[in-house]
Amino acid sequence: MFVVIMAGGSGTRFWPVSRQKRPKQFLNISGNDPMVVETCNRLRPVARDEEMIIVLVREHLEEARSLFRDRSVHILAEPVGRNTAPCIGMGAIYARYSGYEGPVAFLPADHYIRDPSAFLKALDQAGKVAEAGGIATLGIVPTRPETGYGYIRKSQPLADFSDFPVYGVSAFVEKPDNEKAHQYLQCGEYLWNAGIFVATPKTIIKEIRQHLPDLHYGLERLKETLGTDSFEKEMERVYNGLEPVSFDYGIMEKTGDPLFVLPCECGWSDVGSWASLYDVRAQDQDNNRNLSEGETLLIDSRNSFVSGRSGRLVACLGIDNCLVVDTPEALLVADLGRSQEIRKVVEQLKKIRKEELL
Amino acid sequence: MFVVIMAGGSGTRFWPVSRQKRPKQFLNISGNDPMVVETCNRLRPVARDEEMIIVLVREHLEEARSLFRDRSVHILAEPVGRNTAPCIGMGAIYARYSGYEGPVAFLPADHYIRDPSAFLKALDQAGKVAEAGGIATLGIVPTRPETGYGYIRKSQPLADFSDFPVYGVSAFVEKPDNEKAHQYLQCGEYLWNAGIFVATPKTIIKEIRQHLPDLHYGLERLKETLGTDSFEKEMERVYNGLEPVSFDYGIMEKTGDPLFVLPCECGWSDVGSWASLYDVRAQDQDNNRNLSEGETLLIDSRNSFVSGRSGRLVACLGIDNCLVVDTPEALLVADLGRSQEIRKVVEQLKKIRKEELL
Repeated sequence: MFVVIMAGGSGTRFWPVSRQKRPKQFLNISGNDPMVVETCNRLRPVARDEEMIIVLVREHLEEARSLFRDRSVHILAEPVGRNTAPCIGMGAIYARYSGYEGPVAFLPADHYIRDPSAFLKALDQAGKVAEAGGIATLGIVPTRPETGYGYIRKSQPLADFSDFPVYGVSAFVEKPDNEKAHQYLQCGEYLWNAGIFVATPKTIIKEIRQHLPDLHYGLERLKETLGTDSFEKEMERVYNGLEPVSFDYGIMEKTGDPLFVLPCECGWSDVGSWASLYDVRAQDQDNNRNLSEGETLLIDSRNSFVSGRSGRLVACLGIDNCLVVDTPEALLVADLGRSQEIRKVVEQLKKIRKEELL
Repeated sequence: MFVVIMAGGSGTRFWPVSRQKRPKQFLNISGNDPMVVETCNRLRPVARDEEMIIVLVREHLEEARSLFRDRSVHILAEPVGRNTAPCIGMGAIYARYSGYEGPVAFLPADHYIRDPSAFLKALDQAGKVAEAGGIATLGIVPTRPETGYGYIRKSQPLADFSDFPVYGVSAFVEKPDNEKAHQYLQCGEYLWNAGIFVATPKTIIKEIRQHLPDLHYGLERLKETLGTDSFEKEMERVYNGLEPVSFDYGIMEKTGDPLFVLPCECGWSDVGSWASLYDVRAQDQDNNRNLSEGETLLIDSRNSFVSGRSGRLVACLGIDNCLVVDTPEALLVADLGRSQEIRKVVEQLKKIRKEELL
């Protein structure tokens, strides 16, 4: 299987650890390797390093090269982010350029998966589905009435792939309100859209030609220059002319061609906030989670999350539902339940012109 | 007036800012000068520097000398703390040695007083009372049913000092339980014992001779060597043989001689915890208090206290009733209402042998 890892995201939802120059995928948010490295490692059973490409934006190229300096993973830099459709198009032509016409998995670099073997089993099966034509997506079986994710509504099961349940797709659904999210969870027909799918280069390029002709034209031009000196200049030119568009919106929701969804229970999370990072891992007996480099004392404290990255001692006394993130340049103390509002801090920093902390 | 400032206290109730080697009186806990310096400055209207002596324990001598290097305040180091009675005895013989027989004020170095002029007016009046013989104490008019202080029960008003109310003392009362503290507040006869009093050297020495004869014997020996080379050695010898005893317990509660109390409303606090330091000063419109050197963002936060002493940015989001103390070596995040339990942190630090942070 060829693998395209989409690492172009930006954002500061993990401020003060994540910064504009160091988004989540390049950080060891969960205390181990940087997420993009964890993502590559997780995929090793289905793809060798030479069968993986990381697509990112240029300002993170040096960082990625340094992370992968001892590995033969491909790295492709977009001059500027244009959402997922161009990134996926580039991945498809790159796979083909590498002589690969089989199923290609496309997936984000910054997701957490608790049970990699369940994930890989579904991905492998999705590859088989994709080989027969069409696009196969993984649908995460919901565990709560989540309003922060998009959903995929499955239709009838397909008999052809009886060793693993595969369904048709009846609709892609936007992030629901609370009431709808409860309905989705109860009725059992809805799965979380994790943005993970598998298709052959041929299928991807055919879809793009049909639904995003401008992008297709750009990719054709880029295909010619791949591996030549003029590639980078051509990337610059093509990307500058592209409209940002997501693959979901530009292709998935419009195509008349077959779409498949494979339900997957693998402990997936997009870890979109400190609170969700707190949720994905086991806590101690007081429901605290401690991801600190230095010594941390949690005294009479509950339901709290400490990420100590300055090496200093962190002492907590009597706190509850609290987030403490300690870095050498800045300290964050927040209500853990409000960690999705960290943009408010970042906005304030912009206002008071603390650019060095953004 | 001669002034004896008692700066021998130790303790870590303001950890991580206060440490064994740097107790509260030598810190700028409230964001301005170190408390012992604030105490001296407050007394300047009633005493010149040469009429002040700071009594402390030897390990803080260098610190104090450096704080007062440009001033002619006297400094006297005890080789080891033996509670207040020996300290007050030393203060009395030092005042006499300095040729001073008038009223001497004895007071702790680490108290906060919001209204210094009300305080000085009472102290001045206490001096007049003391000149006529006996010991005059300031009694702080209670503003809440405090269980953390001892009380003085006043008796009948004295007609002799009609320009300022002066009362006899009917009893010294231990820290009460919650119910009693409410009674004390309601009945109006009880005042907080702030450990501040005025008496002549003659009165003090007479009381010590009568009630603490061992201490009196020691002081007699020390009196002989004051100003000579053998003083320090004699201090060592005398202090090693002394029992620790407080002036309240050893003298005040036992004497049959006249005691007077002057009610005082001066916004006094012994600032015994972070919470009480938070209480003594005005907060912002969200009841937050920010005593930080660096930038601090308080977003949707209430009733919280930030003391940033590392120069780093401190960002708080959605916190309530929270204490954040940020120093270069250690960070404390606590329930502000439990700041009197900071000893728990210090005990843990001892257990894990983090001596450098004690």
